[in-house]
Amino acid sequence: MPDAAIAHSPLFTNLSPDECRIVSEMMTASCYESGEAIITEGKETSSLYLLSHGTCRVRKHMGNGADQDLDTLEAGAVFGEISFFCPGPHSATVVAETRATILSLSREQFHELQRERPTAALKITLHATATLARRLRRMDEWTCALVEKGTAPEKHTEWHEFRAQLYSNWNF
Amino acid sequence: MPDAAIAHSPLFTNLSPDECRIVSEMMTASCYESGEAIITEGKETSSLYLLSHGTCRVRKHMGNGADQDLDTLEAGAVFGEISFFCPGPHSATVVAETRATILSLSREQFHELQRERPTAALKITLHATATLARRLRRMDEWTCALVEKGTAPEKHTEWHEFRAQLYSNWNF
Repeated sequence: MPDAAIAHSPLFTNLSPDECRIVSEMMTASCYESGEAIITEGKETSSLYLLSHGTCRVRKHMGNGADQDLDTLEAGAVFGEISFFCPGPHSATVVAETRATILSLSREQFHELQRERPTAALKITLHATATLARRLRRMDEWTCALVEKGTAPEKHTEWHEFRAQLYSNWNF
Repeated sequence: MPDAAIAHSPLFTNLSPDECRIVSEMMTASCYESGEAIITEGKETSSLYLLSHGTCRVRKHMGNGADQDLDTLEAGAVFGEISFFCPGPHSATVVAETRATILSLSREQFHELQRERPTAALKITLHATATLARRLRRMDEWTCALVEKGTAPEKHTEWHEFRAQLYSNWNF
């Protein structure tokens, strides 16, 4: 039986019941007590995380030194996807708010899925790609509006140069 | 023989020579005269574009009504990837600067590749995902720094609320 959180998770929406079962069997379940960190801002891990039971808080360290709660995650939430698909430090901390069960899929397990079930790996990746593309489009719109209306003119040039690099240089 | 631009393109880096040949045969070649638009800001198409020969200019319509040249693309450059993976209008216009040959891969051709060669489709998608994740991380850092240092305090709350939605709501 695949974990119920997988069937309800946005990332695994397009998988067949059989593919859900295979992914579920590959993932590693871990329990966290309330207050324990699952991923930590600035640290790197190489897994994709799915919250199966419980709730988690997303926290970010601010420039002024304080920690800010950004969001609450509930069962079915996926996190760590940016660092999973593009190795690098996490941009926020995720802490168990209640006792929480987390399913994780390591990069090695994902490589195994690619070999054994490329179609299932492709469905997960295509869904992640669409989500990242949509986020990038929305953040681009948000930042464009901010720069054009809410900042000093010298920022406009910096923004356009940054943006030109970002979209044309695939290694930027 | 696969088109030389495919072998030199960042998106197709990980394909085997055989996979390059198959993708090359699937793509449609079109010629554009200098000044002709290949994709237009605000309009939607459903293809991924690879510049095979010639150069192109990337242009964006600015809030003040003017058009701004953002960048020059050379052979091997890929564009339209955001709208390809997440249907929506293009955020910039790409115009042929010289006479240019463009190879395009429609969403239907990509679906065919998924069916026939899921591993090749997965390699392309994983590379696109890593690129989009990296861009999102960089834009997030850029915008965070701008909001914290260069904008009015009321923007900070708006940014944190937007960001919380962006990262936790997969349908946002």
